[in-house]
Amino acid sequence: MPSPKFSYDGLFSSRSQEVPARKVVHPKYDFVVAYPDPETVPLDGLVDGLKEGLERDGKDLAYYPHPLGLPELRELVTSKLERDRGFKVTPEQVVITSGSSEANWLVIQALTNPGDTVITEEFVYTGTLGQLRRAGANVVGTPVDDEGIVPEPLEDLIKLLIKQNKRPKYLYTIPEFQNPTGTTLPRQRREKILEIAHRHKMPILEDDCYVDLRLEGKTQPAFRSLDDSGIVNYVASFSKILAPGLRHGYFTVPDEVQRRALSFRAGGGPSQFTSYAVVEYLKRDMYDHISDINGVQRHKRDAMLGALGERFGGMGAKWSHPQGGLYVWLEMPKNYDMTALQPICFEAGVGYAAGANFAPNGNGDNFARLCYGHPSPEYNREGIALLADIIEKQMAKNKARVAPGAR
Amino acid sequence: MPSPKFSYDGLFSSRSQEVPARKVVHPKYDFVVAYPDPETVPLDGLVDGLKEGLERDGKDLAYYPHPLGLPELRELVTSKLERDRGFKVTPEQVVITSGSSEANWLVIQALTNPGDTVITEEFVYTGTLGQLRRAGANVVGTPVDDEGIVPEPLEDLIKLLIKQNKRPKYLYTIPEFQNPTGTTLPRQRREKILEIAHRHKMPILEDDCYVDLRLEGKTQPAFRSLDDSGIVNYVASFSKILAPGLRHGYFTVPDEVQRRALSFRAGGGPSQFTSYAVVEYLKRDMYDHISDINGVQRHKRDAMLGALGERFGGMGAKWSHPQGGLYVWLEMPKNYDMTALQPICFEAGVGYAAGANFAPNGNGDNFARLCYGHPSPEYNREGIALLADIIEKQMAKNKARVAPGAR
Repeated sequence: MPSPKFSYDGLFSSRSQEVPARKVVHPKYDFVVAYPDPETVPLDGLVDGLKEGLERDGKDLAYYPHPLGLPELRELVTSKLERDRGFKVTPEQVVITSGSSEANWLVIQALTNPGDTVITEEFVYTGTLGQLRRAGANVVGTPVDDEGIVPEPLEDLIKLLIKQNKRPKYLYTIPEFQNPTGTTLPRQRREKILEIAHRHKMPILEDDCYVDLRLEGKTQPAFRSLDDSGIVNYVASFSKILAPGLRHGYFTVPDEVQRRALSFRAGGGPSQFTSYAVVEYLKRDMYDHISDINGVQRHKRDAMLGALGERFGGMGAKWSHPQGGLYVWLEMPKNYDMTALQPICFEAGVGYAAGANFAPNGNGDNFARLCYGHPSPEYNREGIALLADIIEKQMAKNKARVAPGAR
Repeated sequence: MPSPKFSYDGLFSSRSQEVPARKVVHPKYDFVVAYPDPETVPLDGLVDGLKEGLERDGKDLAYYPHPLGLPELRELVTSKLERDRGFKVTPEQVVITSGSSEANWLVIQALTNPGDTVITEEFVYTGTLGQLRRAGANVVGTPVDDEGIVPEPLEDLIKLLIKQNKRPKYLYTIPEFQNPTGTTLPRQRREKILEIAHRHKMPILEDDCYVDLRLEGKTQPAFRSLDDSGIVNYVASFSKILAPGLRHGYFTVPDEVQRRALSFRAGGGPSQFTSYAVVEYLKRDMYDHISDINGVQRHKRDAMLGALGERFGGMGAKWSHPQGGLYVWLEMPKNYDMTALQPICFEAGVGYAAGANFAPNGNGDNFARLCYGHPSPEYNREGIALLADIIEKQMAKNKARVAPGAR
């Protein structure tokens, strides 16, 4: 029955948006996205873990997974949180999710009405920024420095927003190895920010997805470790220590928030098949594996920082020296438009994320995020050198083009 | 810092609902939910498939999965649809989802504004009914008989709804082995319903998740096989032929619907780790495995139908004789309140789903859905016999209680 094309004019929901078809192309030197090292994905360990899990409980796959996720994995999360972050929750207070992105999205939907104001760092992970906007939030960035959010300007901002009748609904923050700036918020600032949050009855959504990737220095206590009142909603992930393709993350929040967040869950939680592999592997090898991958990442970070020092110092650029995580945040002089340069560099084989993508307040054109975790140390060196070449060449071209007019 | 409990009063979004804590308890004779046979989950085959997939492409786990799902799996879906359902789509028109429930939920959100009217079968799968209500839909059931939706009353209903200024936005239907009634819609009816749908510019959301579970008779062409105009949105699943714990389903819809539906995706798609196992296993063994599980299920169905014949015929009950799927739909005489009997039977070790749960129009108290697919044939026989005992005993008790008054 060949029929004329059916038209959906007027049939789409008002909340729906058009997602453009996305073609993923990886440049030779890929500093774009936060991938872990493909060589460190513990494929054999995951398969062994899976077999073990299936041998014991494989027939349970014939059931629908527990609405909160595999109980054994939630137990492992509670032990990890107690050991690594020093706070205690029960397995019933943990929800396993499809990466931390599902975790954030469930909590964001539970807390956000269209038009609500939400505060984030001045530069914020594009995935969360996109989710906040999809939820209709008015996203406002609060000033950051080399150590992350500065408490005093944050309180000033809250007061200003309240005056403007835009009382902020909550604060979203990545306090440890922030994405994209790579900063770690010191304990003292966290305590001050908690005081501010209580003063203004403003919950915190803490995204701790990079905490395991510390290469040096001391881990700071999580907001959640410092405050047991329920004001902190805590999200984390296994994507960074295992692999994003497993789609496994989790969150722990006050019970009333959990019940609301779960009302937005669709698809019944992540694959239990994968959960078996994750839990059995991590039970045996979690801390050894974390130590291994951080050993690898240290070289990669140092290679990138070294290359930046050799080539970008002369251009008047500044960049972060992250103690861990996956990113270096590059700040070029004001006349470098990293947004405009991005497709040119990409074309020439070097990918980075232009800073403007991370900037709710609209600043960020002279910034770039460089992920050092995926390419090899050699590629980090070569790629940064090539990036410097392209940028220098392009800036010279621009200058030549502007010069004749000399205005 | 022990602090008083933080209150979320006034902070939750208006769209959020409280999900009650759910405790899953399985009765000895579990006819409640649509689980496949735990003995037929091909654990070894999945592990072998996984190993093969990881050997070839395992390092790709370090990337975020393709937004539409693993390309190889989407290719397998296109071949399966062409072979089994006779329609052609490209891999870019297929989206892999976390079970068919995510697939339905994405399409529902793309098409539903709060207050929209949606038509379903008179009795409809509770999962979808819940999703439709979460999307704010006014769900109206259209009359069904032993062969599913009756076309003429459907058109009458549409006209009535239009008159009442409640033009139906779309029709959700499970045409093959409907959940809960087990009916299969004949081709002629599908053609008539398509004509009606075009006449009223009403898209169809076709949930074909049971199509592979045919035990006898001839598969009817999908709505999507009969109509290429884009009016049909097609959803299906691997949960029924493999296992729900894998969380793998898919949908194929017109491109403009896909772009809208994906705007509601969170969590980046299902586990790619699991996708490797699914695609490599199915490439090798799909049709043999389907034939194996249907052989097992045929015995189970026949055991349940036999036991119903022995024990329920005398009570004046009627029940469906499904050619496949997972359910028998039991209709008791009007004075049997299967909703009230449900906890009593559950307590005594027999679980079923009370018909009222499936009834958007509020009828259904004398119905029950019995899933024959999960327990063994012996348990199906024993459980149905026990169910008859409990019901007879309880009805006698009720009678005794009513008798003294004799009004």
